[in-house]
Amino acid sequence: MAEIFHTPQARQAYDQLLARVRERSLLESTASLLWWDQETMMPPGGVEHRSRQTSLMSRLAHQMLIDEEVGRCLQACEDDPALKSAPLSDQAVNLRELRHVYDRARRVPSELVEEISRVTSLCVHAWTQARQKNDFASFAPWLEQVVTLVRKQAQCLSAAERASETPSGGHLWDALADGYEPGCTAAEVRRVFDPLRPRLVDLVQRLLDGPKKPKNHLASRPIPIPAQQAFVRQVAQRIGFDFHRGRLDVSAHPFCSGFHPTDVRMTTRYREDGLLESLGGVLHESGHGLYDQGLPPEHHGTPRGSAVGLAIHESQSRTWENFVGRSRPFWQWCWPLMQQHLDAQLDGLSLDDVYESVNLVQRSLIRTESDEATYNLHIMIRFELELALIDGSLSVRDLPGAWNEKYRACLGIEVPDDARGCMQDIHWSIGSLGYFPTYTLGNLYAAQFFQAARAAIPDLDAHFAAGDFAPLLAWLRKNIHQQGMRHRSHDLCVMITGRPLSADPLLDHLTTKFSPLHGL
Amino acid sequence: MAEIFHTPQARQAYDQLLARVRERSLLESTASLLWWDQETMMPPGGVEHRSRQTSLMSRLAHQMLIDEEVGRCLQACEDDPALKSAPLSDQAVNLRELRHVYDRARRVPSELVEEISRVTSLCVHAWTQARQKNDFASFAPWLEQVVTLVRKQAQCLSAAERASETPSGGHLWDALADGYEPGCTAAEVRRVFDPLRPRLVDLVQRLLDGPKKPKNHLASRPIPIPAQQAFVRQVAQRIGFDFHRGRLDVSAHPFCSGFHPTDVRMTTRYREDGLLESLGGVLHESGHGLYDQGLPPEHHGTPRGSAVGLAIHESQSRTWENFVGRSRPFWQWCWPLMQQHLDAQLDGLSLDDVYESVNLVQRSLIRTESDEATYNLHIMIRFELELALIDGSLSVRDLPGAWNEKYRACLGIEVPDDARGCMQDIHWSIGSLGYFPTYTLGNLYAAQFFQAARAAIPDLDAHFAAGDFAPLLAWLRKNIHQQGMRHRSHDLCVMITGRPLSADPLLDHLTTKFSPLHGL
Repeated sequence: MAEIFHTPQARQAYDQLLARVRERSLLESTASLLWWDQETMMPPGGVEHRSRQTSLMSRLAHQMLIDEEVGRCLQACEDDPALKSAPLSDQAVNLRELRHVYDRARRVPSELVEEISRVTSLCVHAWTQARQKNDFASFAPWLEQVVTLVRKQAQCLSAAERASETPSGGHLWDALADGYEPGCTAAEVRRVFDPLRPRLVDLVQRLLDGPKKPKNHLASRPIPIPAQQAFVRQVAQRIGFDFHRGRLDVSAHPFCSGFHPTDVRMTTRYREDGLLESLGGVLHESGHGLYDQGLPPEHHGTPRGSAVGLAIHESQSRTWENFVGRSRPFWQWCWPLMQQHLDAQLDGLSLDDVYESVNLVQRSLIRTESDEATYNLHIMIRFELELALIDGSLSVRDLPGAWNEKYRACLGIEVPDDARGCMQDIHWSIGSLGYFPTYTLGNLYAAQFFQAARAAIPDLDAHFAAGDFAPLLAWLRKNIHQQGMRHRSHDLCVMITGRPLSADPLLDHLTTKFSPLHGL
Repeated sequence: MAEIFHTPQARQAYDQLLARVRERSLLESTASLLWWDQETMMPPGGVEHRSRQTSLMSRLAHQMLIDEEVGRCLQACEDDPALKSAPLSDQAVNLRELRHVYDRARRVPSELVEEISRVTSLCVHAWTQARQKNDFASFAPWLEQVVTLVRKQAQCLSAAERASETPSGGHLWDALADGYEPGCTAAEVRRVFDPLRPRLVDLVQRLLDGPKKPKNHLASRPIPIPAQQAFVRQVAQRIGFDFHRGRLDVSAHPFCSGFHPTDVRMTTRYREDGLLESLGGVLHESGHGLYDQGLPPEHHGTPRGSAVGLAIHESQSRTWENFVGRSRPFWQWCWPLMQQHLDAQLDGLSLDDVYESVNLVQRSLIRTESDEATYNLHIMIRFELELALIDGSLSVRDLPGAWNEKYRACLGIEVPDDARGCMQDIHWSIGSLGYFPTYTLGNLYAAQFFQAARAAIPDLDAHFAAGDFAPLLAWLRKNIHQQGMRHRSHDLCVMITGRPLSADPLLDHLTTKFSPLHGL
């Protein structure tokens, strides 16, 4: 790292700051391991002791961040005149982002942090029970408490008091979203979501009215799980996931944890009749994993060595899951491999059948099971609802009605019960309001980045068809992974694609791909 | 926990102390998970980042212990008049042992702790290389450095300066052993080892000269590893290891880590021609695991909820490995189960053949591969040598000669090279001088405890033959596991068996079991 500071004070403060930040990151990666182990390995009896270990790690990491010494070091660095002249230097990037998380962390009183932690853990428990029994009434008081606390948190963060709009004219929700995707605002999300929604609703309608009715040709073909495991592992390896620096395990809910670029762990789940879901899941988590493995290790533990935010992270998973893994060129390579692994089970099927099966469009109730075309409608519904919950224009008790109404309008589907309606996701129970839009932003970034990659790499389809994913990975490494947090999402997007995020690339992609599949 | 303190100051100081100690224990159990993961799950690339995580946990745990506030709390509690009248209360036990570890930790300067950590990690690396190349000369300078540093550590601990004997007349080595087995001294070890050695040398000689020559009947019968895994897991479960609160995995070197009584992880390794080693290994680690699962969970994180020391821990592993798992009644139950699992591979073998195979006595070079009868001779050799290294009467460069000479005298065997001689164990490379005797002390305690258990439980053999191990486990739970550190080893032994540790029970056991097997 080239030296930029003029004063020895700033240099010293910076070193001190980075040592502390890296130490904090070790606590965080240890907390991640505790979590990974809990989901994959831990014997069931260990859960209570584990929660004590995890809380301690979080508490120590939080204390390390909010210490006044951090503020003093930040200030000493920011006083150095060199900083302004090198705004994209490693130091300036780290200081910009550390100031951001420090200020955020300092604005929320410790009592509120602890209260949110206490109430959300009770709320999750209530949610699990209520969802099983389809009993929204027993869940509602808990969700109300969470929403009230999270609104308080947003007020602290945005320093606005009892107002749905912050003084700068933004939405109170912005302060929450900023924690998942730095700089994210409701206004910016609306700028891309608003044109996307009607066109997507229209596209889905046209596809489902189309003359061809695609189906899942693998639906009634159970495939032994060990064979599935060997197959998906080979695919993950081929697209570039490095098993010397990573693992693939089984968990109830698939996830990916990057402790360090040299230790990235992803999970999936298997069902005998769910090969395509497992494959899609592994491609998705591999996308996250490739990002984590591709972050610059020399900057590990600092913002310069971290992912930009959840939207860009999601763009990487969607790139591999959808833009690669649901493309025809990919299947030209993958289909023979799949036959090799699962020969007996695939008898009579063709490449076209499998391509059609991985690209099935359906109106469905459950977000996590929905397809590439309808997925974003699920997200847009949640975005509108959480905005309303936060600004108080929607009360928790009216949530089911509002939810069902939006599913009717956007997806043309009747929600039969709250378990498959507004209680299907865990996010709000754990206080993660402001999170959902990052999924669709991820899809939008993926589409726009992929257009740029296609323009930059000659014969991308031919590479895929030959099972050669290295050119795409190299492009992502250089343009995204190696950048860490140097640029915020918006700037990164402009830098890579020449323009701000737009709904067009995703809509173009969906229209081009799905129209012929439906005979349009 | 009943209240015993008279003064509110003591009560408050005690609560504060325990909160801190429990927090420290969370850091330690997290460090244990980091280690377990490294040995069983971690992708190879993650090793460097892992070492940073582990060091941080150790450093934070150490800082939490040596803080002056701990000393102040200890003093405030110790000033309370109630303490002396209830020396076996939970509070008194905790204060006794916390004072012990606090004083030990405070006596060694942080710079020395760090220097030992730095040099031992380099020494282990040198040892790995040197052992592979059988090159003691390249290892010797590193071991010399370690011995010098560890001697310094012992001097700090015993507050003796540049003398091989401490002022109280003990050996400098005592201060090291005390870290593995509180209260352990060379004089006490010699009291039991000295009569044991000649009688053991004599017994081994007579056995090997006996008219019958037992052999390993499973030697040339490769057994598929999945079948071995299912079999040993069932045995572990049957003797009482609770898989709801534990796991069994594979690692290069078997070990057991108890993070908490509700989360205990053991490992073993498998070779197609090594079923008996795997089974013995799992019984051994299950013994450790049963102790860890049996510690009182309400006292977890405090001495009252911890194991007495390494010797008592080893007594538990040896109880199940040797006194149960190598007994004829155990095999009366286990042999049909083994046939059930491994039928095709065991054709033509009898119960007698297997019993003989698990009880083979041989003069051998490698401690970890040695049998129940010769094992302790390996330990006694190491004990004498490390005493001499610490008091300076043996220099590192003379170690191979001294080692080989002792193997000739005690085991009647020529050491062909240092890789299979004085470089076979990792212990000294990592600075663990004072550790080895706990293995044989464990065997001695196991024998003496087992005599007491046999006297207390009617028909113990009949229970084993019926696959009923619950009576023995209940006895161990009550007399040992549930006691935590209430009593030091010596007192525990007197309490359970009515007398101090003696060499007789082990010698009686070995003579009674092995004589008929050798036709004596």
